[in-house]
Amino acid sequence: MKPSIPKGTRDFGPIETARRNYIFDTIRKGFRLFGYTPIETPAMENLSTLMGKYGEEGDKLLFRILNSGDYLKDVSSEELLQKDSLALTPKISEKGLRYDLTVPFARFVVQNRNDIQLPFKRCQIQPVWRADRPQKGRYREFFQCDADIVGSDSLWNEVELLSLIDEVFKNLKIRVAIKLNNRKILTGIAELIGESNRITDITVAIDKIEKIGVEKVCDELLSKNIPQEAVDKLLPILQLTGSNSDKLSQLAEVLKDSETGLKGVEELKWVVQRFDALGHSSLLDVDVSLARGLNYYTGTIIEVKALDVQIGSITGGGRYDNLTGVFGMPGLSGVGISFGADRIYDVLNQLDLYPASVTESVKVLFLNFGEDEAAEAMKLVKQLRENGVSAELYPDAVKLKKQMAYADALKVPYVAMIGETELKEGKLQLKNMSTGQQQSLSFNDFINDWGKNDI
Amino acid sequence: MKPSIPKGTRDFGPIETARRNYIFDTIRKGFRLFGYTPIETPAMENLSTLMGKYGEEGDKLLFRILNSGDYLKDVSSEELLQKDSLALTPKISEKGLRYDLTVPFARFVVQNRNDIQLPFKRCQIQPVWRADRPQKGRYREFFQCDADIVGSDSLWNEVELLSLIDEVFKNLKIRVAIKLNNRKILTGIAELIGESNRITDITVAIDKIEKIGVEKVCDELLSKNIPQEAVDKLLPILQLTGSNSDKLSQLAEVLKDSETGLKGVEELKWVVQRFDALGHSSLLDVDVSLARGLNYYTGTIIEVKALDVQIGSITGGGRYDNLTGVFGMPGLSGVGISFGADRIYDVLNQLDLYPASVTESVKVLFLNFGEDEAAEAMKLVKQLRENGVSAELYPDAVKLKKQMAYADALKVPYVAMIGETELKEGKLQLKNMSTGQQQSLSFNDFINDWGKNDI
Repeated sequence: MKPSIPKGTRDFGPIETARRNYIFDTIRKGFRLFGYTPIETPAMENLSTLMGKYGEEGDKLLFRILNSGDYLKDVSSEELLQKDSLALTPKISEKGLRYDLTVPFARFVVQNRNDIQLPFKRCQIQPVWRADRPQKGRYREFFQCDADIVGSDSLWNEVELLSLIDEVFKNLKIRVAIKLNNRKILTGIAELIGESNRITDITVAIDKIEKIGVEKVCDELLSKNIPQEAVDKLLPILQLTGSNSDKLSQLAEVLKDSETGLKGVEELKWVVQRFDALGHSSLLDVDVSLARGLNYYTGTIIEVKALDVQIGSITGGGRYDNLTGVFGMPGLSGVGISFGADRIYDVLNQLDLYPASVTESVKVLFLNFGEDEAAEAMKLVKQLRENGVSAELYPDAVKLKKQMAYADALKVPYVAMIGETELKEGKLQLKNMSTGQQQSLSFNDFINDWGKNDI
Repeated sequence: MKPSIPKGTRDFGPIETARRNYIFDTIRKGFRLFGYTPIETPAMENLSTLMGKYGEEGDKLLFRILNSGDYLKDVSSEELLQKDSLALTPKISEKGLRYDLTVPFARFVVQNRNDIQLPFKRCQIQPVWRADRPQKGRYREFFQCDADIVGSDSLWNEVELLSLIDEVFKNLKIRVAIKLNNRKILTGIAELIGESNRITDITVAIDKIEKIGVEKVCDELLSKNIPQEAVDKLLPILQLTGSNSDKLSQLAEVLKDSETGLKGVEELKWVVQRFDALGHSSLLDVDVSLARGLNYYTGTIIEVKALDVQIGSITGGGRYDNLTGVFGMPGLSGVGISFGADRIYDVLNQLDLYPASVTESVKVLFLNFGEDEAAEAMKLVKQLRENGVSAELYPDAVKLKKQMAYADALKVPYVAMIGETELKEGKLQLKNMSTGQQQSLSFNDFINDWGKNDI
């Protein structure tokens, strides 16, 4: 049999895992610096927790766990004979794999409400699973790295999350633009043109302006039965230009009759000003076409794009006013972001932005010249490790050619050799594998001077 | 609805997660120091990969994923009407959650054989799932932390793994005894008494000696239909005493007619001597009752016990000569260990061995006295973070009592205050929360001297 893994899933070898850990570590460092404390939730959640939270399409994409034991016991023959997969599922499956980290977080907050100090700043780095059709850049198992704060409606939280985005991508050396919108502005636009249930069509159209131009966007809106009058009212919004502050002034003018719309403009303006006042590397870009998770967010909407790679959003988030309501705890406002580690990985791979240290092997490999020599080498290996230097002995006393091939394949920076002569003299040969330079050192000098005068 | 999680699974809050990360980080640091490179495999494996690898009982404990879409489509009404859960399962489920990290590792090695440099030293830290009956200390989702080397039959690998165990538990400050055995010794014993298929009964009995004494163990063996003659031959093995070297001498004497048995004694002796010669803190304990995963291991068997807590083994492993054979790649010898992170967590909790730094919150919390004051505080928060000091602003300008309660709950070591007066004077009040001491500092002094003269 030829072994394989399920489609849409991946194995990660040593170099890939080291690179991914670099991404997770960088994000984790950011979380810690900003005071987000980590939690973890189980991979499996009760289906009652997951169902109905991601829309009808989302329910279909849940991976379901077959009940253990004799799961058909309580299913009637009639039910079975209907051969209705959808109807049978709840009878033979009670659990599913988590689909994101947000719903489990909401469940966690409600379940542990008595132990949680509000406002609660939490971060969470764990895999999620979706039975999506696998395609380039879309996997059935992937990691999310979330930071949320619940129990505070202060806009400083938005500023903090934007700063965190800036911090993480600065450390990863990825140049990004952070797109910003506010759900209340979208509501205002809907009020303005009297088409509140057409917001999706409208934002999709606005999003195409750069590609196809204002005229064609208007044609598209008309073809979708949005009245000429509404399109006329939309025109200034389609043509927002200038700086963020310019755009926001224009928006305020257009939305002057919508209380909600103006509130959205005010919020956005405050966040942009406060973020800019602190001085960051990332650019903010007010973008009224941004509408991700429309039914979910109630205020700020955030999306991050890499500037130097053509790829979807690499981080996103926003404010939601009633996330925990569905679990019986209403009135808790929250705002959060999710770093898409797998897309960030794709970006770093394309730009090759990993520090060299990330995929470094052990520092020193001792070749194996036989039992007594190896025993001596192991003593030095142990001493190096006690000094925090990674080291290993090639386990078998095989031909040197084979041992050196191993050193080359692993890109070991230093190879140490203790043969019969060296053993007698208490010395070793140390070879710098990148320069080819070799020097003879006493065991003592080797241990004591390591790192002081690398050859 | 009251939310809950599936039985046998756990939520980990901020403190628990920080503590667990400390364990994972310590193990990961050991892996890196010893040259084990990390890999990751998918949570879901094809059932063809998993089935038949863990015995009949293990197959039953696999969590199975229900196929997506109309999974009943190709199932006949006849098959359904039989209501045979076991028989239906393979027709509606193709994937399962991994049960351990060893089988996925073997699958990985075979699948990626062309990209792997042998000997291959890999480590892997990921959760596994078992549909076991939940009970104290046994969970349905738990982490394994494995280190294996395949493609080398050198016993130096055993010495290395024992050193790694010593390193990790030394760093975790857990005192341990490492129990050692060798499958070949068990084979020798079976040969000696002519009861090769009774090894399990025999090792279970031997294991009870300390508790119930030699006499009762002999009674038990007889009651299990092991002949008196065989029990007589076993007696010297039941009564091994003294140092490891003493025990090994006695074993060599008893097993002098079994070539395999003597080979096992020789191997064990070599490993013990080499380990001891390097000087370690952990004690080795030769224990012929050790038989974990009997059908699996072919040489060294390792198990680690905590000395100061009553709990099952917290780490275990051994050598297997044909792990990848089942996937079509025979003849690859391997040896590995698995740190049981969840049991280690229980031990550390009982002994309260965590360094204080593990659960530290942000270093400095700035209280929020209003918009302008908060804006100034945020500038300082940003500067602290740029210096690597974690800090945050309380997001809402609510009553100070509430803000201080938050600081207390999170055990924040320093609280910084910039009120109206301080803002005018360019100063802040810094309060040491453990001593209660408070001092006034200029913004500049605060940033520049932070860490130099903590109050």
